[in-house]
Order: sequence, then C-alpha cells, then structure tokens
Amino acid sequence: MNDPRRPAALDNDTARLAALADTLRASAAQRDLAGGHAAREKQLIADAGLLTLAVPREFGGDGASWPHIYETIRTLARVDSALAHLLGFEALQVVSVDVWGNAAQRERYLRGTVENRWWWGNAVNPLDTRLVAQPGADGCVRLFGKKGFCSGTYGSQMMTISAHDPATGKPIFAVVPTTRAGITVHDDWDPIGQRQTDSGTVSFDDVEVRADEVLHRSETPPRPRATLRTLVSQLVLTNLFVGIAEGALEEARQYVLENGRPWVNSGVAQAIDDPYLQQRFGEMRVSSLSAALLADRAAGLLDDAWNRGESLDAATRATVALAVSEAKIVAHRAALQVGEQLFDACGARSTNAALAFDRFWRNARVHTLHDPLDYRVRDVGRYVLTRDLPEPTLYT
Amino acid sequence: MNDPRRPAALDNDTARLAALADTLRASAAQRDLAGGHAAREKQLIADAGLLTLAVPREFGGDGASWPHIYETIRTLARVDSALAHLLGFEALQVVSVDVWGNAAQRERYLRGTVENRWWWGNAVNPLDTRLVAQPGADGCVRLFGKKGFCSGTYGSQMMTISAHDPATGKPIFAVVPTTRAGITVHDDWDPIGQRQTDSGTVSFDDVEVRADEVLHRSETPPRPRATLRTLVSQLVLTNLFVGIAEGALEEARQYVLENGRPWVNSGVAQAIDDPYLQQRFGEMRVSSLSAALLADRAAGLLDDAWNRGESLDAATRATVALAVSEAKIVAHRAALQVGEQLFDACGARSTNAALAFDRFWRNARVHTLHDPLDYRVRDVGRYVLTRDLPEPTLYT
Amino acid sequence: MNDPRRPAALDNDTARLAALADTLRASAAQRDLAGGHAAREKQLIADAGLLTLAVPREFGGDGASWPHIYETIRTLARVDSALAHLLGFEALQVVSVDVWGNAAQRERYLRGTVENRWWWGNAVNPLDTRLVAQPGADGCVRLFGKKGFCSGTYGSQMMTISAHDPATGKPIFAVVPTTRAGITVHDDWDPIGQRQTDSGTVSFDDVEVRADEVLHRSETPPRPRATLRTLVSQLVLTNLFVGIAEGALEEARQYVLENGRPWVNSGVAQAIDDPYLQQRFGEMRVSSLSAALLADRAAGLLDDAWNRGESLDAATRATVALAVSEAKIVAHRAALQVGEQLFDACGARSTNAALAFDRFWRNARVHTLHDPLDYRVRDVGRYVLTRDLPEPTLYT
Amino acid sequence: MNDPRRPAALDNDTARLAALADTLRASAAQRDLAGGHAAREKQLIADAGLLTLAVPREFGGDGASWPHIYETIRTLARVDSALAHLLGFEALQVVSVDVWGNAAQRERYLRGTVENRWWWGNAVNPLDTRLVAQPGADGCVRLFGKKGFCSGTYGSQMMTISAHDPATGKPIFAVVPTTRAGITVHDDWDPIGQRQTDSGTVSFDDVEVRADEVLHRSETPPRPRATLRTLVSQLVLTNLFVGIAEGALEEARQYVLENGRPWVNSGVAQAIDDPYLQQRFGEMRVSSLSAALLADRAAGLLDDAWNRGESLDAATRATVALAVSEAKIVAHRAALQVGEQLFDACGARSTNAALAFDRFWRNARVHTLHDPLDYRVRDVGRYVLTRDLPEPTLYT
Repeated sequence: MNDPRRPAALDNDTARLAALADTLRASAAQRDLAGGHAAREKQLIADAGLLTLAVPREFGGDGASWPHIYETIRTLARVDSALAHLLGFEALQVVSVDVWGNAAQRERYLRGTVENRWWWGNAVNPLDTRLVAQPGADGCVRLFGKKGFCSGTYGSQMMTISAHDPATGKPIFAVVPTTRAGITVHDDWDPIGQRQTDSGTVSFDDVEVRADEVLHRSETPPRPRATLRTLVSQLVLTNLFVGIAEGALEEARQYVLENGRPWVNSGVAQAIDDPYLQQRFGEMRVSSLSAALLADRAAGLLDDAWNRGESLDAATRATVALAVSEAKIVAHRAALQVGEQLFDACGARSTNAALAFDRFWRNARVHTLHDPLDYRVRDVGRYVLTRDLPEPTLYT
Repeated sequence: MNDPRRPAALDNDTARLAALADTLRASAAQRDLAGGHAAREKQLIADAGLLTLAVPREFGGDGASWPHIYETIRTLARVDSALAHLLGFEALQVVSVDVWGNAAQRERYLRGTVENRWWWGNAVNPLDTRLVAQPGADGCVRLFGKKGFCSGTYGSQMMTISAHDPATGKPIFAVVPTTRAGITVHDDWDPIGQRQTDSGTVSFDDVEVRADEVLHRSETPPRPRATLRTLVSQLVLTNLFVGIAEGALEEARQYVLENGRPWVNSGVAQAIDDPYLQQRFGEMRVSSLSAALLADRAAGLLDDAWNRGESLDAATRATVALAVSEAKIVAHRAALQVGEQLFDACGARSTNAALAFDRFWRNARVHTLHDPLDYRVRDVGRYVLTRDLPEPTLYT
Repeated sequence: MNDPRRPAALDNDTARLAALADTLRASAAQRDLAGGHAAREKQLIADAGLLTLAVPREFGGDGASWPHIYETIRTLARVDSALAHLLGFEALQVVSVDVWGNAAQRERYLRGTVENRWWWGNAVNPLDTRLVAQPGADGCVRLFGKKGFCSGTYGSQMMTISAHDPATGKPIFAVVPTTRAGITVHDDWDPIGQRQTDSGTVSFDDVEVRADEVLHRSETPPRPRATLRTLVSQLVLTNLFVGIAEGALEEARQYVLENGRPWVNSGVAQAIDDPYLQQRFGEMRVSSLSAALLADRAAGLLDDAWNRGESLDAATRATVALAVSEAKIVAHRAALQVGEQLFDACGARSTNAALAFDRFWRNARVHTLHDPLDYRVRDVGRYVLTRDLPEPTLYT
Repeated sequence: MNDPRRPAALDNDTARLAALADTLRASAAQRDLAGGHAAREKQLIADAGLLTLAVPREFGGDGASWPHIYETIRTLARVDSALAHLLGFEALQVVSVDVWGNAAQRERYLRGTVENRWWWGNAVNPLDTRLVAQPGADGCVRLFGKKGFCSGTYGSQMMTISAHDPATGKPIFAVVPTTRAGITVHDDWDPIGQRQTDSGTVSFDDVEVRADEVLHRSETPPRPRATLRTLVSQLVLTNLFVGIAEGALEEARQYVLENGRPWVNSGVAQAIDDPYLQQRFGEMRVSSLSAALLADRAAGLLDDAWNRGESLDAATRATVALAVSEAKIVAHRAALQVGEQLFDACGARSTNAALAFDRFWRNARVHTLHDPLDYRVRDVGRYVLTRDLPEPTLYT
C-alpha cells in the first residue's frame, strides 16, 4: 500500500498491528473450531487503538484514509477474517453515524467512541423486515421484533438499528446503547465459517428510542456522499476476501517449507522443487495479487470521493461503486480459489482438523454469500455495455 | 447404469439400497459434525448384504460386476461419502485376498466373509514405512511398528497388512484378525472431512502372523490381473467423488425448492426462475454428468479386464489404468466444484452449521488429496503424447 | 464406439473412411485458406457412399444407426469440420423428408437419393423470415425472397425449403430441385471459419413449388418423433465440436512429436519430457474425452428414441433433448479449449499461416455461435431444478 | 493512467494519439487480411512523433516515463496490436543503445533517432544461433548467416544485431544501418496473427560491422540496469495483451450496441437487456481490468528502477521482473479470453470474414507464444515459495 495521505503518527502502528496479527494467528484455528465470542481478542483490538480509525479528527479520532483503514482490516483478515470483519463493521457503524447524524449526534457518538472505546454493533440487515417502530410518548419511538445477521452486536456497547415504520412505510435509523432495556442479544450464530463474528439475532421487546437518537437518513433522498456508506461496507467485505486469499497463500507457504514432502513419483528431492507445486503457488499468487490491486484501486477512488464531501456528485459516486464491484468479484473468486488450492499445495496430512486449514475456504464461502456474485457481475457488465450509471441499491 | 451382467437377484436390492441411503442421509449432517465411529450405520450396511458384493460366487458371494459395485458405492456416497468409502474399501480388501491369496486363503477368507459378515480393515498405506516384519518361530513373522491412514480398521473383524521385511527389502502382505494380540487400533482420526472413515493409526506390538496368513503377492512380479487391485482402489475414490458431486447437486436442488428466495434485485418472483440460478444448476449438472460417464466407462473397462482372468495382458491393463485416471481427474474437479457451488445456489442461510452443507466440499477436499491430481494429469498427457504404456505404480 | 446395431456390411467401410479422412486432411489447411466450394472433396464423400447413411433400408439406403452416422461425421470433423458439416446436413435433410414426407414423397426423395447420389441443400433457417410463399395456379405455391445460412445448397441437387405463408401465418416446408427456375444460389459465404460449408444466401424469384412437393409438417402439431429432427441437427453440431477437439489434439501430438523443441529453461532434453507439456496434453485429453462420452450417450438415446417410431412419447423425447444439450455444452467448450491450447503445446513456430492450425479454433468459434450456449445451459439447469420437461423449440 | 512524471508537453499529444488510433482502427481489419508491410501507417506513427518517446531528453528525445510509453503502446494495441508491437520494439531498440552504448554511440544513435526519425529493426532473437561474427580488417567484424523473427526490420533505417563470436563463444551486439551492403531483409512473415509486424528473416552475406558500431554489452557482466532491457521488452508484450483485451471488449460493445439482436428464447426486447450478455460483458471487463492494473503496477515499478540508474541493485531489479511476469500471466489470459468471448457477445453474424473480429484472438495467440506461460507461472510460484530472487534470463 502506498498511501500518501496516511498520517505520520500511524506509521508507528505498523509494528503494533503486526504483533496483534501474530497474536490472533496463534489462536485462530482453535477459535474457529470453538466458535462463539472472542472477548479477549476484541479487547486486544481495542487496546491497539483500532476502534477509532474512521472517526474524524475533529472528534479526536484518527481520521485515517480509506486505504489505510482497509489495509488494516486486510492485515487482520490474513490471520482471522472473523475478527477483521468485526473491525470493518466497527468502521462502518462509525461512518453511518458520521453521514446520517446531525451535529449533536456526531459529537455525542463519534467523540464518545474515542473516549469510551465503544465497540459498535448493528441491527440493520435490510432484507430482514421483522423489526417494527411504533410511535411512543414525547417523540420517542418504540421497537418491537427482531433482526438477524447482527454482526458484532454481541459484546458491543452501542449499536445502530433500522426498523420499519408502518406510519410512513419507510425505515427509521437510530442509535441505542446495546444495554437499553428490552434488547436481548442472542448467542445463536453457528455457521460453517466466520464463526466469531457474533452475527446472531437481536430481539427488541418494547425498546425505547429517544427522539435525539433517531438519525436523519430517511427524511430526504440521500446525498451521494451518504450513499458511500454502502460502498464502505462492500469494500470491507472485499478486503476480507483479499486478506483470506493472502493469508491462505502464506499459510500454505509456511506449511510447505516446514512440512512439505516430495511426491513419490515426482523425481525431485524436495517438495519446493516440484514443478507443479511451483505452478500452483504461481497461480495462487496472481489470483491474490489481482484481487489486492483491484481492492487498492477501489479504496483510492473511495477516498477521493469521500474527501469531496457534500460536493460529491452521483456520477463520481457511481464510478466508485463500479470499482468496488469489480474488486469484489475478483476478490470473491481469489478467496475461494486460494482457500481450496492451499490443500493441493500442502497435501493429505494438512487436512488434520486441528490445523483448521479449511477455515480459509469456509470463511470465504460464508462471506461471499452476503449478496449474489452473479448480480454484481451483471451490474458491471450492464454498465460496460450501456454506460448507464447504476442507481445506488442496498448492496451497490 | 446399464449393466447387462448384473445378476437378476440384485435387481431386488435397488429399493433396499435406496432405503439404506435415505436412512444414512437423515443423520449424515449430524454424524459429520460428531465424527468418530458409525457403528450403527455400519451394521445397517452389513445387514443390507453389501459386504459380500465383491466375493466371487464360488465362495457364496454376490460376484457382482464392477459397474454394479461402483454404482452401489456411488449411491451411498451421494448421501455419505465416508461410509461409502468404508464399503468401497471392504470390496478392496476382498479383492486383495482374491488376487493375492492361494486357494486355501481364498476359501478361508472369502467364504469367511460371507459366513461371518466380516468388515475388513487395512494397514497397507504404502507411503508409511514404519511397520516392520521380523522372523519368528515356526515360519511366523512378527510385526512391530505402526501404520497411518488405516481406513475402516476401527470396528473391523479382519484386516490386511503390509510390513517391511528388512531381510528381503520387500513388503510382506498378510491377513490377520483385528483382535489379534498386540494390535491396537487408535481412535485418532480427526480430519476436516470424511470424518467417519475410521482412518486412524494402528499399532503393532510384537504381533504374530502365521505362515498361512501371509499372502503371496511379493514373491513374484505381479501378474497384470493382480495389479488391477490398485485400479479397483482408485475407482472407489473416483466413484466417491462422483457421488459427492451428485449428492451435493441433489441437496442444492431440494434446498432451493423448499427454501429458495428470489434475490431482491433479480426481477423474478420465484428463485427457480432466476436465470443465474438456472445457469448454475446447468453447470453443476454437466460437471457431475461428465464425471459419471467417465467413471462408468472406466468401470466397464475394468470389468472386461477383470473377467479376462490370468489371460489379461499388460497393454489392456494399462488401458484400464488410463481410463481410471481420466475419470478420477474429472470426478475430482466435479466434486470440489459442485461442493462449492451448492452454496451459490442456496445462499447465505444455507451456511448454518447444523445443515453441514460444507461437508460435501470438505469430504471431497480430504479425499482428493489421496494422491496429487497433477501427476495423474501428467500421466494421462504423457500417454496421449507418446503412447508409451504406463507402468503400474502404487497409485495408477 | 461400440455399436451393436451397426450393419456388418458397414464394417468394411472403416478403412475406406480412414482413407477418405487422410485425403481430406492433406488439403484441409490449404482449402481453409482458400475457402469457397470443395467440389472435388464432396465428390469423394459421395463416392465413399456416405450420402445414404440415413436413408432407411426400405428405400435402398444404409439405415445406419445414429451412433454410426455420428461416428462417421466425427471422423471427418477431426480433419475437416466444414465438410463434416456438409455430410451431417445431408443426413439432416434426408431425415426431414423421412419424418415430414408422405409415402409418395419418401419413396421419391429417399429412393432418389440412393439412385442419384443427390447432395441435399437447404433454405430453412428459422430466424430468417424473408422468404414468402404466395398461392399459385393448380395448388402450387410460388416463392419470393431469400434465405441466409443455406449450408450445402451451393453444389447440391435437391434442397429443402421453408417459407412464410401470409395466408396462414405459418411456414410451408417443401422440397425442390436446386436447379428449379428462379433459384439463385449465391457464392457469398466468407466467414472466419467453417469456410467450405457453402452456407451462403439463396434467392427465390417467383419459384414454383408443386403441390406434391409440399411436405406435411405444418398441418398438424408435430409428433414427438418428427421433432427428433431438431435433435438430429443439434447432435450433428455436437459431433463436429467433438471432432474438432479430437482433431486438434491429434494435430498437436503429431506436431510435437515431429517438431517439438524443449524450452530453453525447462531442464529437459526432449519436449515430450516437459512436465507442463505433458500436463497440457492431459488436459486436452480429458476435455475431448468428456465431450466424446456425452455425445456418444446422446447418440445412443437418440437412436433408442428414433427406433420407437410413432410410439415415441414427449417425455422420452425431452430426455433425449436434454442429453443432446448436455453433450453440446461440453463439446462446445472442449472444441474451443483444445483449439486454443494446441498452440501452447506446439509453440511459436506453429503459428505459421501455411499450417492453418488456427482453423480448429476458428471452425469451432463459428459453429459454436449457431445458438447461444448460455440458453442451453439455462435449459439444462431449469430441468435439473424443476424437472419440468422442456418444450421442443427451434434449437432444442 | 495517473502519471505525475508525464511531461506537460505530452498532454497535448492525447488528442493526436486518439486520432491516430482512429485512423489505424479504420483499416485494421483490411490490413489484417492483407498482411504485409504497413508503410503508410508506420509513417503516420512517425509523423505523430512517437519514435522518440524513449530517447532521453539530453539527446533531444521525449524522455517519457515508462507508464507513459506503455500507455501509448496500449492505446495503439487496442486497435492494432501489430503496429503497436512495432512501436514497442522501436522503444526497445532505443533502450538497447541507451544501456549498452558508450557515450559516442549514444550520442550518434539516440540523437540520430531524433533528427532522422529512424525506425529501428533488430536481428537479436537469442534462440536463433545461425548468425556468426568473424574477425575482419581494422577491428571490424564480418557477419555471415541469418536470423528469424526480426520484428520491424523490414522498412527500418537502423537495426540492432546479435551474432555468435566463435572466438569468444559469446554474442556480439552491434548497430548497423539496415541498408548496409550484404543485408537482405526478407518479406517472409506470414503468420496467423500479428500479421504486420514485419517479423521475417534477415540474411547477412559478409556484412561489415565497424569497431565503433559494436556495443559493449558482452564485455562485462551486465549491471542490473542494463538487464532492465529484457523487462522493457516483456512489458511491451504485456501491454499488447492488455490492449488486445481492451480493444476486443470495446469492439464487442460497439457491435452489440449497433447490431445486437435479442435471442429468440431470451424473453427480452433488446440484446442489451439480456442477463447472460450483461454477465459476459462483466466477465470481459474484470479480466481486462485486472490485466491493466497489474501492467500499470509493473510499469510504475520499472520506472522507479529505471530512474535509479546505475545504483539499481539486483534485488530491486528482481522485484520488477516478478511484477512484469505477474502482469504478463494475467494479461496473456485476458487477451485470449476476451478475444474469444467477444464472439459470444456478438453472435453468429459477427463471424463474417470482412469484420476480422478473430484478429484479436489470433493476434493474442501469436504473441502469447513468445515464451511459454507455464515457465513464467513457475518462476512466480518458485519465488513466492522460496523467496529466492530469480536470476535474469533471456525472458525474465
């Protein structure tokens, strides 16, 4: 990453980040098998000062560039894409408050994030419409129902929520403390991969949301800059995929160097001299490198667009959206491919469950289903063909 | 399968086999998560009369054709490729005795298999050289050491073994009851897939092997027919891959029919009308069908070669070997591909751990590492190019 | 091919067919460069007795099985897929008369084909609606307009035609001699591949079609057997693709054996020992073999359906249609892949224009665009998913 | 391309370059069919001032950055990769003189290139060892023999040559005017693609090379900077591939917009609404974009290394070499893929020979055989695995 906008102070963080990654790597296989909540590791991430990367400097945050934020996420994803997801979604909730909040809300929640090192969760899955907002007293709304796929909410201090308002037919967006009365965060996330993202269900039983907790997003057609939030989210996923591909490649490399045996019919004395093994590493490399370059390009374009502030126009925003989709397509495939080929490189003994080498593929597989690849390819192709700018959607 | 050589009596078994498959399917996900030994399910397989498929009729067995045996294995592999592997390796050990045993041994062990419904295990992994044979009294040999990847030995009654004889520098092959004094079958198989194949380690602590238990394989250069044993083994793996591909496709189909939801931006009312979903099922189908046809062709050629008995020549044997390799290459890829794409078809909710849909990919991934695909492709290519017949190896 | 229904007399034809293929191969590159009409070679095909393969024996034809007919087409396609296409479409027009003609027409045209060795052309492209039928005197119809993609009509003696009848809104099918007054066969076929299929335009300027020349196809909903005609056509294309793949592989093999040089950094003394070259031949082989097996399976199913005659039901017909589509998908890809990889095998010097090695890819590329692969994959996938039998269309 | 080092004066050239590209595109199909020497178009390139891009400013050249030079080559390659190859090899010969020449030679040949707008040819193919240098009078050497694949020599004014010196066993590098007595440039280049690169044979019949025409390359182990020449060459090829992919995509886009018809069974009213067509454009886009990003990265790294001058160390040089190989692998595949898929997008009518749409695939196919992809993938994989820096070779 070559990021001229990176604050000098952050340069000191590289070594700290590497140390954090090493620590996470040491327990990643075991935690993948166990699943559940990674309280200790989340604390390490908070202690490393990573919760405020996306908080603007005016509120005491790092105001880090998007290339820097994504490089940080990717670094963790190489060793643990579940915890990297939590970090990425922390940045996403911070951005949500930043683009949807009014001055007081931004002051309260963004500075609060710096001062209190809040982990942010969310209950905003747009495809889940079970959470309903009813009018309450004193301008409050009251929440009833539940949301699924609430990544990071378990163990968080604050959360964003999205609820259907039957009166207007539109969603309401708001911020509440996770401990607010009536909220139950269920420990019911048990998937085949990304097992420690705490993406379970959250129930709301007559939960009060104060008027000053409601964010303003839905009142007006969103400005292009506010819709960058979706791209921030999609590029988090993209960088998780890139990190998975890069991490699987590195894991394969280390395993072969330490444990590789030449195949009995290969005619070579050492595994590293096997022509097909070398070929496979070459293939894994060009896949993960392509994904990384597309992700870097998208991060640079996002950063440029972000820095334009409210002057950002829809056409430029659409250009960023396409770059994000292009990167996500390539990264999606690289993560699955390298996650699978790592085994061809390492051989039969690498399938021992204790190594959990399949976690790269499983993590990629779970996260690449967030939205269908096919429609993303279609959107890119439609634009290439017609040059019609795509409208912002929930996923693009 | 169109198998004119199939005994009429076996036609009655189709319904019984389907019922067995249904029973196995019902618990397959749960048993994949649990791992360990499937005693109850192995009993069901024995009760279905499948342990004697490969035993010649002269010893009371079914003398089933290879196409029939492989179709049976594949049928079980669609729902549980671990137990299908056990069944396939049962046939393989029966064949080992059939081609390597003398008249008395064939009578004793093959008829014994019919009369006692023995499950056969093995300790013959050729890449593991830790098991050593020492001369004992009265023409006995005594075994010291261990073998890994001893599929099916846990819970078996009889087993084949292969041990290094320092006196001759060659391996000794023999049959012993699994309960023979000094044998310890370890319950240490814990891989990422094929979790119930009981492929753990077996230790031998001064184990006696009587002279009449030693099979004659190593004394003379093997006849072509005896080397068909390796092809029987490779075609077991191939049919496991085909079954995995077909099973994953069927699982995806049923899930989509029952749970499929149209994607929010798809413009279709039902998931089954989605053009990209239809495309994906088409791709999964042509992959699994190609694999099935190549496997069927190889089974037919193997059966023809097998039926030639001792008159089988090396050139014909080599032709079968190539057909098996061609089938294994295509089936290997189909199993991994369909095992991965099943998720694209089924979507994010299908990653729930309780469904264990990832077992198809994990099972394929473990078993496709038995020997490297690259060298198999090379062997096929070398033959295509030079027409030089390949020599039998441990894997081809 | 293992074809038990193959007439014994045809066994003698194998050597003759091989000789014909050798003759065609010798001039294939030069004729590809020149394009245009292959009068001499078409005469050789006629002289080899191949024009009556599909004519039923009751009219003096060979009544060959579909597996035999397709094997013949594929054999020629290995060396010249343009002329193989002409042979395939000869069989297709014979079938058209056989399934659509009344007793007198079948007698006249099918026996005439045997007695006169007619080459049949056609003007039936269903996507070209420019040819119109007007009522004439004495029950005649008169044709005005033109048709494109009229493969084989240039140089033919008889042809089938399809014209739009404005009175009924339906097409009229008929047979006319190619020399009928008012018919002009244009020599305007100049594509990038399949250059000698004579697939140019035919103009009709007030062409008389007598009442007894009109085939009965359009008067009633077609019986399932009559709709097999479309499958005969699609399986001709499929076998061209298989032949292209097999022919390109054989051409690569011969070139490498005669001209192969080891790459300077390969460390091997002969090209045939290069591990990556061997790998590539392995890949070309499994692709072309998969395609061949699917095409053989479809030919067998077509033959079974064909032999059921008028008792053929729609469900069985649909099963054949799916098998044909499955085969065509795999063969389409194999032809393009092997046509491209032949160059990786042969190296830079093989790009000399005089060798015309690119004709395999160009021939495949032109013919694989007959109808879009994507919709064929979709149709297969839709059936796999829903088990709804597809309706016969113009292409399936 | 975002190239901060690009001289301001060059910005004016963008429109001129676009106009040149339009002119070349208009005749590209016709010239591909005709083959032979493009004298008029080479004059247009010279008139556009592109022959001196790589000449340092101290000799009056543009001293353009490598990103700028490659962007120029790629722009022409989108419409005519044969002429773009000639431009790329012009820069390569200029670089050869720049890194191998002494001060007087650089002054004479580089300033001469500016003053005389020389087109440079070459006879340096390292795999062709037929050209021999014999000692002559007065320190001259005399050349006997021939070289193949002498791109750009036909129609050139100056040329670089490489000849085997039997006295030393090493090659001699020199510059001679193409008109020097004894040199015959044969018009014998007739390949399936890249048809106007004038890459025929050059004969040398007792050709005098003066002492001051001999470049100093072979006398000492080359400095890392001098070995960048090979990378300049490989990155020319890479950018040709990128340009082919981008050009094929653009050609497909324009054809579909102007001529696209919806498929009869597609259910859409316009071709551009076809979901599979959109998908295909998406796939072509992500392939060509990935290739472009890797090529841009390599160009940037090459430029950094180049600007280090004689201080360039071997490790940095190796890093550039790997980046070039990574880019070339991805671009190789993108060019072939998009060159093939353009037809799937455009349909059957696009195979008309007059359109020559197959030239993208044919051009890619010829040029991607310059050296085998497999060994490049191996080299990348070997480095990824072992981190051993590769030695410079003739191709890397």
